[in-house]
Amino acid sequence: MTTFSELLQKRRAIRDFEDKEVPLKVVEEILQESTLAPSASNNQPCRFAVVQCRKAISNLSNESKANLLRDHKDGKISLKTEYVSLLQDENFNVFYNAPCLIYIAGAKSVGSLDVDVALAAGYIMFSAAARGMGTCWVALGANIRDPRLRAELGLDDNYRIVAPIILGYPRTIPAPPERHAPEILRVITEAR
Amino acid sequence: MTTFSELLQKRRAIRDFEDKEVPLKVVEEILQESTLAPSASNNQPCRFAVVQCRKAISNLSNESKANLLRDHKDGKISLKTEYVSLLQDENFNVFYNAPCLIYIAGAKSVGSLDVDVALAAGYIMFSAAARGMGTCWVALGANIRDPRLRAELGLDDNYRIVAPIILGYPRTIPAPPERHAPEILRVITEAR
Repeated sequence: MTTFSELLQKRRAIRDFEDKEVPLKVVEEILQESTLAPSASNNQPCRFAVVQCRKAISNLSNESKANLLRDHKDGKISLKTEYVSLLQDENFNVFYNAPCLIYIAGAKSVGSLDVDVALAAGYIMFSAAARGMGTCWVALGANIRDPRLRAELGLDDNYRIVAPIILGYPRTIPAPPERHAPEILRVITEAR
Repeated sequence: MTTFSELLQKRRAIRDFEDKEVPLKVVEEILQESTLAPSASNNQPCRFAVVQCRKAISNLSNESKANLLRDHKDGKISLKTEYVSLLQDENFNVFYNAPCLIYIAGAKSVGSLDVDVALAAGYIMFSAAARGMGTCWVALGANIRDPRLRAELGLDDNYRIVAPIILGYPRTIPAPPERHAPEILRVITEAR
């Protein structure tokens, strides 16, 4: 039984995983819990694709890396220099060799898709941490355009991937990254 | 000590609050916990404005309602008919007379602002639920344009409000809204 204060300490971005598969049943339990996340007008727009094959995950990493580098070269996006070197390294897997990858996507037409998916992603992170597992939202892994790969994920053109979440059993747990105090701009206690 | 499974049941959108103020110290504790939420590249873009005065909250409700109705009339947005009637009702407070309102905002220039704020908002919801408190993300309350009101909130033109969260002690807790099973489009267990 994990308390919320414990979870707050345990939920950490994990990028180093044990060589141990995640049973599909556990993934399904985690996704089931994520359905309790709120969404705008209770619209529940999240759709999931689960990848549990390292070769497939590696292919998706290569596809996303290639698209990011192309967009950068074409001036459509501007990547920091350190990211460019990382993406050019063919040994770099954006998914850190995780045993499981969950894509959270949804219909492009849903105006609140980004925040709805992010709220569900937060539930997945906590739900995994409560089971002693680790997750990381890997934004660099979202750029999947190859129609064959998208079809394999069940994502037609109406879907947009918002959150690629890796999942597994942590091998090492990094020190918590520094956080600044909450920046409270104003406290209004009386109408002026 | 609340366990995560209890929290999953307790975290509910609350729109009916006891007539009881939320101590600023409690709000600060909740915001402190929200800083543990992940953000893209640990950029921590969330900025907060806390409103604890019912008159000020009512003024903000009126401002947001007027802007939404104007945008709807001008064809800039399309509101559902039931929302139009609700917003036209001068007795309707979009913040449901909550004793406390937290705006989460951030710099417009941050590309990941929506998801970063949503992740922090999820932490705030759980953190409040762990304290027996209720929250609701009130998207209808985000449209604050009046320069005087924005200045009072400490929000200059570079800031964008993403999440208006109401906070208080629940008077009634509604039945959980229905959720469908997670929609898993595909499970890939082997690369093709």
